[in-house]
Amino acid sequence: MHFTSGNITTFLLSLSIMLLSAKLLGELFNKIGQPAVVGEIIAGIILGPTVFGWLMPQVFTSLFPTNNEVKIALDGIVNLAVILLLLVSGLEVDLSVIVRERKSAFLTGAMGIIIPFILGFAVSLSFPYLMGLKDESMKMIFAIFMGTALSISALPVIAKTLMDLNMFKTNIGHIIIAAAMFNDLIGWLIFSVILSLIGASNHGLSVWQTILLVLVFTIFILLIVRKLFNLALPWVQKKFSYPGGVLNFILILGFLGAAFTEYIGIHAIFGAFIVGIAVGDSVHIREQTKEVIQQFITNIFAPLFFVSIGLRINFITNFDPVMVIIILVLAFAGKIAGCTLGARLSSMKANESFAIGFGMNSRGTMEIILGLIALQYGLIHANVFVALVIMAIITSISSAPFMKYFLRAEESLSSLLKPDFILFTDIHDKKELIGLLVNAIGHHFKINKTEILDEVLKREDIIPTGIANYLAIPHARININKPVIAAAINKQGIDFEAEDKIPSQIIFLLLTPKDKNELQLKLLADIVKLFKDKDRAEKILSLRNKEQVIGQLKLSA
Amino acid sequence: MHFTSGNITTFLLSLSIMLLSAKLLGELFNKIGQPAVVGEIIAGIILGPTVFGWLMPQVFTSLFPTNNEVKIALDGIVNLAVILLLLVSGLEVDLSVIVRERKSAFLTGAMGIIIPFILGFAVSLSFPYLMGLKDESMKMIFAIFMGTALSISALPVIAKTLMDLNMFKTNIGHIIIAAAMFNDLIGWLIFSVILSLIGASNHGLSVWQTILLVLVFTIFILLIVRKLFNLALPWVQKKFSYPGGVLNFILILGFLGAAFTEYIGIHAIFGAFIVGIAVGDSVHIREQTKEVIQQFITNIFAPLFFVSIGLRINFITNFDPVMVIIILVLAFAGKIAGCTLGARLSSMKANESFAIGFGMNSRGTMEIILGLIALQYGLIHANVFVALVIMAIITSISSAPFMKYFLRAEESLSSLLKPDFILFTDIHDKKELIGLLVNAIGHHFKINKTEILDEVLKREDIIPTGIANYLAIPHARININKPVIAAAINKQGIDFEAEDKIPSQIIFLLLTPKDKNELQLKLLADIVKLFKDKDRAEKILSLRNKEQVIGQLKLSA
Repeated sequence: MHFTSGNITTFLLSLSIMLLSAKLLGELFNKIGQPAVVGEIIAGIILGPTVFGWLMPQVFTSLFPTNNEVKIALDGIVNLAVILLLLVSGLEVDLSVIVRERKSAFLTGAMGIIIPFILGFAVSLSFPYLMGLKDESMKMIFAIFMGTALSISALPVIAKTLMDLNMFKTNIGHIIIAAAMFNDLIGWLIFSVILSLIGASNHGLSVWQTILLVLVFTIFILLIVRKLFNLALPWVQKKFSYPGGVLNFILILGFLGAAFTEYIGIHAIFGAFIVGIAVGDSVHIREQTKEVIQQFITNIFAPLFFVSIGLRINFITNFDPVMVIIILVLAFAGKIAGCTLGARLSSMKANESFAIGFGMNSRGTMEIILGLIALQYGLIHANVFVALVIMAIITSISSAPFMKYFLRAEESLSSLLKPDFILFTDIHDKKELIGLLVNAIGHHFKINKTEILDEVLKREDIIPTGIANYLAIPHARININKPVIAAAINKQGIDFEAEDKIPSQIIFLLLTPKDKNELQLKLLADIVKLFKDKDRAEKILSLRNKEQVIGQLKLSA
Repeated sequence: MHFTSGNITTFLLSLSIMLLSAKLLGELFNKIGQPAVVGEIIAGIILGPTVFGWLMPQVFTSLFPTNNEVKIALDGIVNLAVILLLLVSGLEVDLSVIVRERKSAFLTGAMGIIIPFILGFAVSLSFPYLMGLKDESMKMIFAIFMGTALSISALPVIAKTLMDLNMFKTNIGHIIIAAAMFNDLIGWLIFSVILSLIGASNHGLSVWQTILLVLVFTIFILLIVRKLFNLALPWVQKKFSYPGGVLNFILILGFLGAAFTEYIGIHAIFGAFIVGIAVGDSVHIREQTKEVIQQFITNIFAPLFFVSIGLRINFITNFDPVMVIIILVLAFAGKIAGCTLGARLSSMKANESFAIGFGMNSRGTMEIILGLIALQYGLIHANVFVALVIMAIITSISSAPFMKYFLRAEESLSSLLKPDFILFTDIHDKKELIGLLVNAIGHHFKINKTEILDEVLKREDIIPTGIANYLAIPHARININKPVIAAAINKQGIDFEAEDKIPSQIIFLLLTPKDKNELQLKLLADIVKLFKDKDRAEKILSLRNKEQVIGQLKLSA
């Protein structure tokens, strides 16, 4: 066997086409407010036997041959890609967040795995053939697999969705992330059991031996290697070229961890993920290092993996509507019930709990990887795999809209802005203008106007709140139960020291409850986001009708 | 064929061991002032059949199997690695430097290719079997190959050496880089002819058709694609995620260019190199983008390639001392004669011309790649390849010391520092101290002391010249022919506003000729480099003998 010149040409063409289609659809989905990963998976479905391979079977087979050196080389790259993707996902895990939010994270994460697992397990055990069991003798393993596939989250997708919603650094965001990390860790541990039950290449180890090895490995990496890495990193950064030395060091550790878990019969990705957590936790790791690794892996390797999913299977011939509906119902019901319940148990409010439930509902990375392995080992039919991928896409797409819906009632910008709190003014003086806004609010709420005005002006003295594009947002946290927003469209520009030096003409006054730091940040971010678009700011300045102003502000909030 | 679990374990282990050994030896060579690439090649020789495979043949074959899926996957990665390496090398090519230094670059680059080419060609044609010809019918192609292999430079190694010598931004540095780029471009064009003569997979194209296609491709990419890319880049950076979108865009273009040249019978690396030049030339490309690509590729992919060289061949059984000596003599003689002559013709001074000759003498990337291809196509014996690799290592290692030697006489720090210009002082005042130093110089050279003092103090007022570790370097460019350096070891710390806030006790006065900007920069850098080591600074402060001070300063200059 030899990698010929013709092989190289095909290999390069396949890679370019995979990257190109993944990027185009990934960016398109990003543009319409969806996670890029969904676009990348769909790009693969289009590029694979489902569409392109069906339209032009000859070109398809010559680009993506099924049985020669190019396939092996692409397999190698895709395997490397998943391993690197999990290494990077591990880097994102912040152990201290889990510790800080341990109560909510534990309850949400645990219930978010127990309930969907039991649901998936029970249904698969009760109706194994309806659920697509291939081999009667594998019934128990199959049921455990379905339970796991339905209960595992997709940390990278969840993190991306939270960032898109400006919620990554809020309280709810932290709880969701911590719960998802906890969830993933447990999910992988269960999956390692499944793999050892399938027993692909575990060198004659029993299930218990494998579980023991996995636990020892996990504890060894998370306790000892984590500490050692943290101790060694400053030395590596000092003695070796930077960031080259660290980059290599991290990849070598990741590959070794991956090779070990693969060797003991657990998939390589588990080892890479655990090493990623241990490495990412070091206080000495620098942003630049993470940046280089993350950019290259998430932009080059991850898309290659997600595209490759669609290349394997025909999503039309293996599309089984009943299976898809069953999987979707089980996935939504189990995860949302579990996480919402968990969040409620940790004394979150009902709407917040539902938001957490939908936030945790995104699948897309992990459970597709699990599905692929199960498919490879002949544990499931292709139609189950297709249903799992479709479930991943739909749960990921629906997560953000549902979260917005549940958090909207209380906290969203458009629900807070009432016509009574919109003023058209023509004032020179900053204090006077803020006074007017406080007054407008004071007509409707029982607040101490003088005290609040003082509070807002004090804040304004320290750091002026001019943003850009005519916008300024004086704000304060005060003794109220709900946030209040008032806005003035002021003909005169007033200097709030905005970044772009443009005097502010659209001034929001934002008052939020004292104990809700994250809510203030979220609302501030929402307003700023709305005014990223200078055209919209100018449009609003031209309006003279309160309802129209609210209409403009609702457009994207 | 299928990538099994056992394959994955082996694949990951091979990759980790390759990366680890490459990094360790690469960094070690860096530490002793040699290019990392030399260490990486030697790591491969140790890891390959020469040492490790000879000591533990069983372990070696199970880690680096010669005939299964793992080998194909590793082949795929290594092929990708060279292509990416050439893409990055292309990014480093600055077309405007070639244009600016066109006369010297053209003469040096052209003579640096013509003379070694003719030498290699003539000797190979006259004594083909001595030179290792395998097949009489290939004599002409073989001679052209040997000519090319002896005349092509290694841009990445040359650039690295210049950076290590603090010469990358000097005049000589610019000329060397420009000449090397020109040299590489022509070398690749000739090599493309050889490949089409071998005719591995050129789809029945004649040599002339291939040459025509290569020229059309090169012109098309360097003129049209370069312009289009430059126009499209701001749009890509705006509309797509940054830097993800650009990263993908560059890789896709590189892969497509590589696939095209591979398809027409020229190696893929040529296409990647040309696309790299076109892309890197864009004024819109940002440092961050280049950084991510370069860091990941030069630290992960490039070492994998260089290590893989040693894995292919036993360097002891294929070691042919006569061949090695012949290749070494031809390589040194041809390249140094050609480049030195070229530089002289462009009216450089004799010692500078020799420095340029040795600077251009580094091989290590390109001609190893050429050698590998020639080996693959059965054009040369393994002993020729081994000799070429050894020649690459020796030319690269010897480049920096010879350059230092030829530039030392005139410009090196240690040659400039005379005992008469070392003062032991105990002064509070900055002006007074600088005055003393100017005076010391004034005893020996005809200079206008007042004017120079004014000049130095003026410079000092604008930006104080305190560095760190007790060092300050007041300096000025004045009307003299040669640089002069004086130094004071001052018991009192004087505030020169050093970075580390430590008052300066070691004060160098550096006076350089008005028209030699690059010389001033080089000498400043040399002094700063010497004082990176705080221990040495403290050692010097403890000395009370001029000769000892000079001894300490000579250690690494």
